[in-house]
Amino acid sequence: MLPLEFINQLSELLPADRIYTDPVECYTYAYDNSRKIFPPEAVVFPLTTEEVVAIVSLCNTNKIPLTPRGRGTGTAGGSLPEKGGIALSLERMVRIIRVDPANRVVVAEPGVLNQEIQNAVKPYGFFWPPDPSSAAFSTIGGNLATSAGGPHAVKYGTTRDHVLGLKGVTGAGEVIKTGCYTTKGVVGYDLTRLLIGSEGTLAVITEATLKLTPLPEKQGGLVAYYCDAISCAAAIVAIMGIPRGPSALEFLDAGSLSLIRARFPDLLPTNCQAMLMIEVDGSQNEISETINGILSVCRNSGLLQAEQVINSESLWKARKALSPLLRDIAPKKINEDVVVPVNTLPQFLDELTQLATQYRIVNVNFGHAGNGNIHVNLLIDPDDIDENYRAERCLNEIFDLVIRLNGTLSGEHGIGSEKRAYIPKEIDSTTLTLMKRIKQLFDPNDILNPGKLFP
Amino acid sequence: MLPLEFINQLSELLPADRIYTDPVECYTYAYDNSRKIFPPEAVVFPLTTEEVVAIVSLCNTNKIPLTPRGRGTGTAGGSLPEKGGIALSLERMVRIIRVDPANRVVVAEPGVLNQEIQNAVKPYGFFWPPDPSSAAFSTIGGNLATSAGGPHAVKYGTTRDHVLGLKGVTGAGEVIKTGCYTTKGVVGYDLTRLLIGSEGTLAVITEATLKLTPLPEKQGGLVAYYCDAISCAAAIVAIMGIPRGPSALEFLDAGSLSLIRARFPDLLPTNCQAMLMIEVDGSQNEISETINGILSVCRNSGLLQAEQVINSESLWKARKALSPLLRDIAPKKINEDVVVPVNTLPQFLDELTQLATQYRIVNVNFGHAGNGNIHVNLLIDPDDIDENYRAERCLNEIFDLVIRLNGTLSGEHGIGSEKRAYIPKEIDSTTLTLMKRIKQLFDPNDILNPGKLFP
Repeated sequence: MLPLEFINQLSELLPADRIYTDPVECYTYAYDNSRKIFPPEAVVFPLTTEEVVAIVSLCNTNKIPLTPRGRGTGTAGGSLPEKGGIALSLERMVRIIRVDPANRVVVAEPGVLNQEIQNAVKPYGFFWPPDPSSAAFSTIGGNLATSAGGPHAVKYGTTRDHVLGLKGVTGAGEVIKTGCYTTKGVVGYDLTRLLIGSEGTLAVITEATLKLTPLPEKQGGLVAYYCDAISCAAAIVAIMGIPRGPSALEFLDAGSLSLIRARFPDLLPTNCQAMLMIEVDGSQNEISETINGILSVCRNSGLLQAEQVINSESLWKARKALSPLLRDIAPKKINEDVVVPVNTLPQFLDELTQLATQYRIVNVNFGHAGNGNIHVNLLIDPDDIDENYRAERCLNEIFDLVIRLNGTLSGEHGIGSEKRAYIPKEIDSTTLTLMKRIKQLFDPNDILNPGKLFP
Repeated sequence: MLPLEFINQLSELLPADRIYTDPVECYTYAYDNSRKIFPPEAVVFPLTTEEVVAIVSLCNTNKIPLTPRGRGTGTAGGSLPEKGGIALSLERMVRIIRVDPANRVVVAEPGVLNQEIQNAVKPYGFFWPPDPSSAAFSTIGGNLATSAGGPHAVKYGTTRDHVLGLKGVTGAGEVIKTGCYTTKGVVGYDLTRLLIGSEGTLAVITEATLKLTPLPEKQGGLVAYYCDAISCAAAIVAIMGIPRGPSALEFLDAGSLSLIRARFPDLLPTNCQAMLMIEVDGSQNEISETINGILSVCRNSGLLQAEQVINSESLWKARKALSPLLRDIAPKKINEDVVVPVNTLPQFLDELTQLATQYRIVNVNFGHAGNGNIHVNLLIDPDDIDENYRAERCLNEIFDLVIRLNGTLSGEHGIGSEKRAYIPKEIDSTTLTLMKRIKQLFDPNDILNPGKLFP
């Protein structure tokens, strides 16, 4: 329970309509897409950097945990106030401070939705490349906290590639300004990228200077159907080996296709067991040249058919239906987003199937194959204790496999609370200790999102 | 002077042919392209990470300064052993450990030349985008230490955008591994980018996992001649405002053109006072479309003529002659690489001229205008005390101007020893203190490149 004196001090910082302490109101800030529930003891809604400073300073003085939060769309529990205390909702810091097409820059507060950024810059012929599937309703603050990616990362990179500078408030309540306003700059250490992906454990980001990218003129697309996952994975390797590549390259395995068939019975060839959705972008000529290049290498003995898709909406239809379908059949699914080097995908998918069979776990895999980023879903019944136990052991072996293949445990979801136990598989203790000491520097009383990201 | 006991211990770590202590031999490691001279007291040449650990640990125990060094092509003094001690030359760590075109990755040791990386990956249709003018003879270790850019940064970004992971040895002699081998990864803090641009003050980089980019099919080019710098700057703003932009956009002012005329009398139109060299890349169609787009916006009342260049070598001929010409006429020139937002270039160049006039300094400006990155050269006679004094005051005002325009003091050269006094103009004391404390974490005894980067 928060001390009454602390609540009183908090109430002096913000008007009543920007502090929730009623447990019912607080409960709506207790969860994210990890489906875990940790109610905060209070929710605060700052409007300015100065207010964030005041709130953080008060929490720091009183050693009250404070968890920054956007719209709670994360899947790894990064925004959950696991240790209670304050949920710092940035959802009312929604100003787009500057749209500057001449310099290809937009400056915005953390509560602005990714989609709102896109809407603001599209008229000038630009976009901001990070495109998590939550883009319509996730905030740029959350995108920054996780270095969000998405299907187009294969061509455009992830959030960390598209930020010039940040303003933030450290756990000590100090305002820092990182990076610069220009596309080049090497003055001082790169604290911008240190904050990106740090899941609110180092500082509360209160302003971001985002770098814009020219919108591609057009999109084109291909779908390719394969008789098995291994030949499909071989095609992914071939496609990524040619210099002129796709703007998105999504893989769907047999389990994914079964789910889609249940919803769209006539969408897929009957004997298809794996599928690629391939998007290319650029001028009409570029698209034609790129599609021809891809078509020439994606053919192998397992290819059933490959066809061009005129309407890019129909290209994405199957893919977009997938996550909700998975939630329907397995609300407590384990959803990982591991990454392996692209040329190990055939081996990875093969061994993954063996592990799922060995542990008797229903397993559905799909994702951003061009980056080697596969969403591995273990569909379990939460009430089946034995199945839960098997899933845990299976997951542990999947992570070992990923590391053995020189991959990484998370490509875009982050660690949050979900994956922290597994971090030592990937990061050696020396490097991890250094990271923890950086955390101490920024947040000496461990109030910012305590317990997250580290094992 | 190094203690004899220390030299003896060092001699136990490396064979005699990999330790220099003779002052004559050490002197060849005393300078870089800043033309300052600071001889080390010993030079060591490790071959492995383990040897770097042993050397750093020994220096750390004995609190002996240690300055990592590639080929000494930097212009900011970053590789100079200003406080004496050891020069750690990485020039013999020259293995390209892995060329992996399927995953678009190359793994290499820090002493490998930038050009050698290009040669190794070109047969597979890839390149590594950082292209400092020293690329033929600068090391990737040095490129990483400064987050080197170059003319193509306007399209491809700088070093920090093209690195997946690093291995390094901290000032405490501990080996850390940062980042990952895949194009996506969000596990732990981004120490990769923290090391990039840190000028050897945090860790000695001993291995780098570099991300490759597909080689463009072709290059095309344009030159555009203007009657004055302001109309030329307006054209730069217009060109960078259109979505499909150049792969390089270099600006040369009247002073630069005078120098070129002295060498190539017939190269330029007589009344030309400013010039753009514009490169575009892609397929033939893309090049044509991009050139047409640029031609349509680069015309303004100050344009004398714009012409396509068939041979890209001739495009770069004038630009490449420039730096040596400047050295010939002013060996002690002050060479800055400030950056301003692109749309402030007209104002910047205008005020720059006013300042040069006011302080009676010969001033030549050129550079990577697409990034707003201008190399400002103050051509001074080192023996003229009054001129030196005026140049210093002029430079101070130039930096104030840059900051007022929301720019940055260095785009690609780094701070080294040359610019450290000016850092507080750009970085506030809170942020700077945090950076210094990060330095302390990595290097508790301040042995790694001591005195650099910070004011």
